[in-house]
Amino acid sequence: MTAFRFDLHATDGAARCGTLHTAHGPMDTPAFMPVGTAATVKAMMPESVAATGAQMILGNTYHLMLRPGAERIGKLGGLHRFMNWPGPILTDSGGFQVMSLAKLRKLTEDGVTFQSHIDGSKHLLTPERSMEIQNLLDADVTMAFDECTPFPATEKQAAESMRLSMRWAKRSKDAFVERPGYGLFGIVQGGIYPEFRAESAAALTAMGFDGYAIGGLAVGEGQELMFSTLEVTTPLLPTDRPRYLMGVGRPSDIVGAVLRGVDMFDCVMPTRSGRTAQAFTRRGTVNLRNARHQDDPRPLDQDCTCPACRNYSRAYLHHLIRAEEILGPMLLTWHNLHYYQEVMAGLRSAIKDGRVQEFAKNFAEQEAMGDIEVG
Amino acid sequence: MTAFRFDLHATDGAARCGTLHTAHGPMDTPAFMPVGTAATVKAMMPESVAATGAQMILGNTYHLMLRPGAERIGKLGGLHRFMNWPGPILTDSGGFQVMSLAKLRKLTEDGVTFQSHIDGSKHLLTPERSMEIQNLLDADVTMAFDECTPFPATEKQAAESMRLSMRWAKRSKDAFVERPGYGLFGIVQGGIYPEFRAESAAALTAMGFDGYAIGGLAVGEGQELMFSTLEVTTPLLPTDRPRYLMGVGRPSDIVGAVLRGVDMFDCVMPTRSGRTAQAFTRRGTVNLRNARHQDDPRPLDQDCTCPACRNYSRAYLHHLIRAEEILGPMLLTWHNLHYYQEVMAGLRSAIKDGRVQEFAKNFAEQEAMGDIEVG
Repeated sequence: MTAFRFDLHATDGAARCGTLHTAHGPMDTPAFMPVGTAATVKAMMPESVAATGAQMILGNTYHLMLRPGAERIGKLGGLHRFMNWPGPILTDSGGFQVMSLAKLRKLTEDGVTFQSHIDGSKHLLTPERSMEIQNLLDADVTMAFDECTPFPATEKQAAESMRLSMRWAKRSKDAFVERPGYGLFGIVQGGIYPEFRAESAAALTAMGFDGYAIGGLAVGEGQELMFSTLEVTTPLLPTDRPRYLMGVGRPSDIVGAVLRGVDMFDCVMPTRSGRTAQAFTRRGTVNLRNARHQDDPRPLDQDCTCPACRNYSRAYLHHLIRAEEILGPMLLTWHNLHYYQEVMAGLRSAIKDGRVQEFAKNFAEQEAMGDIEVG
Repeated sequence: MTAFRFDLHATDGAARCGTLHTAHGPMDTPAFMPVGTAATVKAMMPESVAATGAQMILGNTYHLMLRPGAERIGKLGGLHRFMNWPGPILTDSGGFQVMSLAKLRKLTEDGVTFQSHIDGSKHLLTPERSMEIQNLLDADVTMAFDECTPFPATEKQAAESMRLSMRWAKRSKDAFVERPGYGLFGIVQGGIYPEFRAESAAALTAMGFDGYAIGGLAVGEGQELMFSTLEVTTPLLPTDRPRYLMGVGRPSDIVGAVLRGVDMFDCVMPTRSGRTAQAFTRRGTVNLRNARHQDDPRPLDQDCTCPACRNYSRAYLHHLIRAEEILGPMLLTWHNLHYYQEVMAGLRSAIKDGRVQEFAKNFAEQEAMGDIEVG
């Protein structure tokens, strides 16, 4: 039986390189986890997700509890079996999405009551119920139930929201069913206020979690405030536990956050953009809907080894998008996930070699060049 | 350089088993060709199409001439390269779809003028232009330009329409650019009237084509009339050339047509049904949207080796459809194409072994059993 364990292999400044071991296998960090909201990484076969280099994926408690239902997935053998993903899975707590997607939501000390955005059915989500759901889903990494503090928030709002999350973190820890190979992460809140981030980090480390997430960022505060908040937060977290920046982000956000000591990321950006004709490349983003691609025989990125770049022209990808063919989202999602994983592999290797600053500099320079000109 | 050639390996009654050799490789017959309308077999990677056992696919002249344009595909190296399908491709002539999809169409002796259903642009399609387009697309099998006689049609309408198609067939043959490995098929018309089918077959065989299609069926006449029309038509066609029943059909249509001497088929049914939750199985069709599947841990078909059946439960496929996830069409299209190819492989092997009647009997019995009960 694998113990849930984080091995730190190397550091380079604040940047870290390690391996997180879970019941369903390891994940090398810094790591990007593709989002599989409704028990599928949209437009991808799970084998293809694995082929991009992804080792852990994310599932959404809010979506899965509503459809098809956590008890149903539990009876069918858990989320890994249900969606044919044998590797590790992290599930969020439902806290963030219940506040952004559900209808008629009401927050109390106990938890959140709400109506499903799908069929209007009524539900209650509490720390205890969130732990129960994530256990039914068989998540390798369970997230504590929290309130994601909105941005902007006054000091008073940020403090009250963070303290509620800390009380919920305690209840989450008490309700979490410990099993070898399975871990529970606490979530640091506190908005953009360093003193509240410090209070939150202290409260969580006193309780003791298997990993620490940094929540409430990438909600509109901008990259500069996000980075400065990370700089005051990550030094307060234990070095022997993984750190997870939730819902981040663009490739440049990820590179900057790794430089500031973050180990794990998730974001819908590569998958969502893949369905809306937006490609991430080493030379920045490319919109394949643009007519300038219609006669272009060149690949999206000639140095990329993903199927979209290896086997197809920009002209073809453009055609698929214009014709609204499903293969368009399939190929662009694959490319974007492949590119994200390539960035993560580059970061891991640079940290091991002690050249992460050089990697970040090259990364920024290449991205600033912009896309190749029309041939 | 491969010559365009049809080798007949075995017959069993009227049923035939052979191999069609083309510039881009062979196709074993009886064969089912998946439809790749807009330069993609919808919801499938081309590698996956090949993995189902398909050897030749079909492209649609009407769709491709409008978007992205035949000249564009030609400049980009032809359809094989454009869509990353290295195997043989058959293109239709555009005749059928211009009459069913285009706006403000006007048919004259010269050809058909029409407006694009996509952007209203005006176009002219003639036998000569159809040959030019199919040549630009680099089709291994080019279809003569014809008018698909509607059903029902009076004797007079059927005769006039068929004779126009025969004059167009002659113009198609004159305009076709002969190249080693590339072939041109004529299309027998004549509606449900045996004497016109005979007149059409005689006219085409006198001109001499590399293969013969049977057109104007599966347009509402029903399986019985389709089979009886095949019975009077296939005996009039040369035995050393492939016979292609256009746009057919359900698995039982295909089995019956093979018994009546047909070698090649195409149909949107497996792909279109795959996008609308309908699966074809050896026990008939299964609608996976139905709530009876929501807790079912069993595969769609326990004897099927496609990814949808090997790795997923009915409950999961049902969930994907309800959640409108792209993976639903991806998996069900894969399954349907896999099943169609399995039927074709079964037919080929049965013909070789002289037991095609037994195969057809077993096929009909299994299909009549209907889907497995709720467990």
